[in-house]
Amino acid sequence: MSTELASTSKGKLTRQTILSKAVDIASKEGLEKLTIGRLANDMDMSKSGLFSHFGSKESLQISTIEMASDIYRNAVIRPALKAPKGLARLWAVCEYFFAYTEKEIFSGGCFFATVTSEYKSSPGMIRDLLALRMRDWLNFLASIAQRAKDKGELSAEVDPQQLAFEIQSILMGANWCHQLFDENHIMTTGLEAMRQRLRQLAPPEAHTTLEMTFLERTLDETP
Amino acid sequence: MSTELASTSKGKLTRQTILSKAVDIASKEGLEKLTIGRLANDMDMSKSGLFSHFGSKESLQISTIEMASDIYRNAVIRPALKAPKGLARLWAVCEYFFAYTEKEIFSGGCFFATVTSEYKSSPGMIRDLLALRMRDWLNFLASIAQRAKDKGELSAEVDPQQLAFEIQSILMGANWCHQLFDENHIMTTGLEAMRQRLRQLAPPEAHTTLEMTFLERTLDETP
Repeated sequence: MSTELASTSKGKLTRQTILSKAVDIASKEGLEKLTIGRLANDMDMSKSGLFSHFGSKESLQISTIEMASDIYRNAVIRPALKAPKGLARLWAVCEYFFAYTEKEIFSGGCFFATVTSEYKSSPGMIRDLLALRMRDWLNFLASIAQRAKDKGELSAEVDPQQLAFEIQSILMGANWCHQLFDENHIMTTGLEAMRQRLRQLAPPEAHTTLEMTFLERTLDETP
Repeated sequence: MSTELASTSKGKLTRQTILSKAVDIASKEGLEKLTIGRLANDMDMSKSGLFSHFGSKESLQISTIEMASDIYRNAVIRPALKAPKGLARLWAVCEYFFAYTEKEIFSGGCFFATVTSEYKSSPGMIRDLLALRMRDWLNFLASIAQRAKDKGELSAEVDPQQLAFEIQSILMGANWCHQLFDENHIMTTGLEAMRQRLRQLAPPEAHTTLEMTFLERTLDETP
């Protein structure tokens, strides 16, 4: 697919600007409503101009998912990877996720929460792509948990896949509460849930490290 | 709104049958697609026949939410209320919820997970009604947790609202995995998460009762 821009009435618009808008719409209303016509209207562009970028509704939707993955990677995964491997990194992932939710980087909250709910019962390419991305994410969480186990920061009995499921549940739950109830203290509730769960899973000799990790401010507030 | 049936080509159809179908569609595709025209087509009824029952799309959507609440109450809340107050009841709620998810009482999984995600960014009567129902549900979980605290089955430090959030997150997470990955063992993963969390929150003197509760099969398999 070409990344070059067709000449439009808003010549300064880049493909990235269009997709950022697309991600934002989809985070609120889902991907199904994301038609070329709707996006052209919202961006004051011609349908033919947009069509030359994306060709079809499905292609636009797939590009939107890839754009959302990039934004998520930059907001949560990349900054968390700066934290030391193991427990500190697991904690950093949670902190960055809650920050991503609270800052409303996407105005409908977590893009992936919205669209996976929307497509869960719709077999096809979009659902397959979303399931793949979400499986990658759960495996990413599990691999960090495995590393924490290897370092002795989590007990030998911890099942990394089980913990990945639990972390993902708490992150999604916090996003859901924040969106549905307009609750701003949900980051506190979510972090407290993670804090308590990790205290249970860390062996006694790792508790000092754990409490130090909780105290350290891993969030990098620079834009 | 009248609960009497208008004469239709399928005279045997009751309002309840129509709404059961409506709930099922909405659990998969959301409430927005639930128009009188769509439902009339799926049920092989006339639009005017359906219109006489519900009057407007919004009225149909609200009746559908109420129907889903009734089904949920009968599948999860009522049977769980047969368990003794406190921890046994909290455990029963989780078991019945996972059964409700796995049995796919609604073919798109949990109705409320789908429609709260759909309406979270759409201010109005539907979102307000959903937020109210979900707040009631979280308060219901918190009140059972409070009772377990009062009975000494959970530590005095437990915050019932915090625990309600965590339970809801695990239940939603299990529903999400089951739907997105077609995972059938998610009830095991979800129950294990709850089991471990409750072990952490129960004081030592309540541990025997807790393990007995886990062993008891509270699920009432009679239809």
